[in-house]
Amino acid sequence: MFQSATIPQEIDRKDYQARVRNLRKTLLDLQHELRDKKSFATIILLAGLDGAGKGAAISRLYEWMDTRYLTCNAYLEKPGEEERLRPAMWRYWRDLPSRGETAIVFGSWYQHPLKAAVLDKIDQQTLEHELHAINRFEEMLANENVLLLKFWFTLPEEEQEHRLKRLSEGKEQERHYLEEWSSVKNHDSAQKIGETTALHTSTGYAPWYVIPSSSPQQRDLALAETIAQAMQRKLETSSLAQPLAAPAVLPRLASGATIKAIELSASLDKPLYKQELPRWQERLSGYVDSKAFRKRSLICVFQGNDAAGKGGSIRRLTAPLDPRFYKVYPVAAPNEVERLHPYLWRFWQKVPRLGHTAIFDRSWYERVLVERVEGFCSEADWMRAYSEINSFERELKDAGAIICKFWLAISEDEQLKRFKDREKTDYKNYKITPEDWRNRLRWDDYEIAAGDMIDRTSTPYAPWTLVSSQDKRHARVEVLRTVCNALQAQL
Amino acid sequence: MFQSATIPQEIDRKDYQARVRNLRKTLLDLQHELRDKKSFATIILLAGLDGAGKGAAISRLYEWMDTRYLTCNAYLEKPGEEERLRPAMWRYWRDLPSRGETAIVFGSWYQHPLKAAVLDKIDQQTLEHELHAINRFEEMLANENVLLLKFWFTLPEEEQEHRLKRLSEGKEQERHYLEEWSSVKNHDSAQKIGETTALHTSTGYAPWYVIPSSSPQQRDLALAETIAQAMQRKLETSSLAQPLAAPAVLPRLASGATIKAIELSASLDKPLYKQELPRWQERLSGYVDSKAFRKRSLICVFQGNDAAGKGGSIRRLTAPLDPRFYKVYPVAAPNEVERLHPYLWRFWQKVPRLGHTAIFDRSWYERVLVERVEGFCSEADWMRAYSEINSFERELKDAGAIICKFWLAISEDEQLKRFKDREKTDYKNYKITPEDWRNRLRWDDYEIAAGDMIDRTSTPYAPWTLVSSQDKRHARVEVLRTVCNALQAQL
Repeated sequence: MFQSATIPQEIDRKDYQARVRNLRKTLLDLQHELRDKKSFATIILLAGLDGAGKGAAISRLYEWMDTRYLTCNAYLEKPGEEERLRPAMWRYWRDLPSRGETAIVFGSWYQHPLKAAVLDKIDQQTLEHELHAINRFEEMLANENVLLLKFWFTLPEEEQEHRLKRLSEGKEQERHYLEEWSSVKNHDSAQKIGETTALHTSTGYAPWYVIPSSSPQQRDLALAETIAQAMQRKLETSSLAQPLAAPAVLPRLASGATIKAIELSASLDKPLYKQELPRWQERLSGYVDSKAFRKRSLICVFQGNDAAGKGGSIRRLTAPLDPRFYKVYPVAAPNEVERLHPYLWRFWQKVPRLGHTAIFDRSWYERVLVERVEGFCSEADWMRAYSEINSFERELKDAGAIICKFWLAISEDEQLKRFKDREKTDYKNYKITPEDWRNRLRWDDYEIAAGDMIDRTSTPYAPWTLVSSQDKRHARVEVLRTVCNALQAQL
Repeated sequence: MFQSATIPQEIDRKDYQARVRNLRKTLLDLQHELRDKKSFATIILLAGLDGAGKGAAISRLYEWMDTRYLTCNAYLEKPGEEERLRPAMWRYWRDLPSRGETAIVFGSWYQHPLKAAVLDKIDQQTLEHELHAINRFEEMLANENVLLLKFWFTLPEEEQEHRLKRLSEGKEQERHYLEEWSSVKNHDSAQKIGETTALHTSTGYAPWYVIPSSSPQQRDLALAETIAQAMQRKLETSSLAQPLAAPAVLPRLASGATIKAIELSASLDKPLYKQELPRWQERLSGYVDSKAFRKRSLICVFQGNDAAGKGGSIRRLTAPLDPRFYKVYPVAAPNEVERLHPYLWRFWQKVPRLGHTAIFDRSWYERVLVERVEGFCSEADWMRAYSEINSFERELKDAGAIICKFWLAISEDEQLKRFKDREKTDYKNYKITPEDWRNRLRWDDYEIAAGDMIDRTSTPYAPWTLVSSQDKRHARVEVLRTVCNALQAQL
């Protein structure tokens, strides 16, 4: 697809100026419409050959667009400590623009596979594997209504050589940050691998655009005009657009049998509990203090019936932990800023670094539980959430996380008893709201949603543990035991 | 003040339970009232002797309070890379709770001075200097309506020894994270330095409370009851409260003469400009690429009359910079989340790490410009802002920042010309709003505010440069030259 990008004719000065005037007006109007409507976020991703003028093009966009709604996220090849100790995609997630805003991304998620492939550090298969992961990420962005535009800046070899020479001699009035892997020496290889990459990742929702960069004026016009057109088109159609992942027909879902099958009779008497609890807490303490754990992290997710005792179980789990190394995140409705970002964004912010523990009291699974049951998101949204969540947890696992997910179950009768008890006890009645009573009326719906969730997100690397919480002592020890076993198996 | 903290009587079980029930109800009600009213943020700061049970007390608060509005920020003694490359207070600023929320802080801003003083790494004078800086910080918190409660956990030496022994033998069911500097070996010294510290930093707005910790039950009750009382009192009075820093009488302010005195006739002709601009850009590029700059950072602040050409000057400044190492921050009104935090919080988030550059298109100075003139904050708020800003910039400088602040000035007539020009030009008219015309009517007020700002925040470490922007070419080169000279002088 790169061949067709031939060197264009030099543009007439007057024509250029007229087009720029037009373009600036259009871009600004689009940005301001977006600022008001907040219908989507825009990401402008720049990649391509060394010396093709990506930096100069960024400056041009800064000149032509309203910088209040434009940001540039340029990433170092060598990630910093905070980044190195988290999944590779963490830094990109952290910086995703909010709806209404535009971000230029330079040194993007393509940087690693491209560079590694050109320098022969990964084979074709690994490259394709990485590109596949990128496709999934970009599909998620598209589904979350992010406009993603990807540009490949290209130059013929002799032109590149000429330009790099002028740059090194200080004859160009622009900044040059050397990208060794795509410099003249690697021109052919970089072009070839860039093309392979583009072929694999040029999708309907996130196509690549090739920008011939011999003429700076043509280059900047092509870039900015493409951006303007794409924004315009998305603004016109976004209200009508169908989510990409909407299944034609919903797959057959489970019936809630998974949840119904949980054996609720297990219990633990007090003397045994007083013996078991400290025993497991001490073991847990030993695991997270071990040297091996410094290269891992622990992520625990708690979901379950209302009043199943998530809070109590979490407190027994954290008691033996050092507060400098763990964080508990109670998950409520997203705030204003979070609502303007893709769904998983706020959870990515909370991904623990290696050596640390994050405990989620409710979690990203609310998407397929309360949001599904109460209709807070569309069917297509929660249907695609299963695979998005699986990808998310896979990335966590690949970066060293040990993941334990708990569903704490109680019977409908037991819940009623606990609700009434909560209402009676002064310092507990804040825990019981009209909403809890309403949710209770939809017991069966939640049971089905939870069953589907467990069926569709139980992976070898992030399994669900179904815990009867009918007897709280049993549940607390069971949670601790499961976490200890996971740590033992994986450390 | 620590002597009076004698060992209390063991508490009767029934009495304890009744008090706990009461307390939990009270704490929860207070938290929920705060959640709704969002009148202030609460910080619970824990310090004291090793083994006194700070960790156990944290667990208790987690049990008694609503964890949705409670968080624990516990800091490692050794800061991570991101933290090390920024001012020492950065990590504490980053985590300040928002109004309506409560944060437990463990390993706080007292950690360094306390530890260093006990281990004899700093002398009395340095200690007092650090404590003085802490007082200023806490005064700012109080002024920003943060309820700050500081607790010193204490134990007699023999008790401490006994407890640490039981902990090391695993006889206690709680986590122990060793704080060497305050363990038995250093008991007396830690108590003494703790007391000195408390005496220096126990202020009316942020007093220290001593918590005798021999009895865990008494300890937890004393802690939680103090918290409840303080929250209650602040809730009752906060609507009536006078800001701390309200001056009885406003000091005499400047008359705007500072601004009027700016010589606006300077200009630069085009041929010279074409020569000078790249020359300074190249020098700038050399400075920020130098090895010496890796241990420094650059912060540029742009303020000035509307239409003075801040954006254009910034673009000429960034042209020679590598986008991976700089960020431009256009500053607008704070968003919902930012409004719930102390004023400087959002700027602390943007403090660059060493080796990086941050450029602010408008800045924290809006407090003493538009917010003052338009009455968006009280007189007391903007009056105290001068010294808060000076402290802020001092901290930046002490951590390696080179700070350049620019006031770009044009005449009233020139502004009118540019406003009209902006209205006529398609792609410029978004820059001119009814607000700009309104601001223009208050030219004199802004002139006085700017004059005061320059008088009161021109420090040797962060000087203002007044630049005539009547001729844009002159202004652009002047800005570059000033930045280059600052870099040359300080690298």
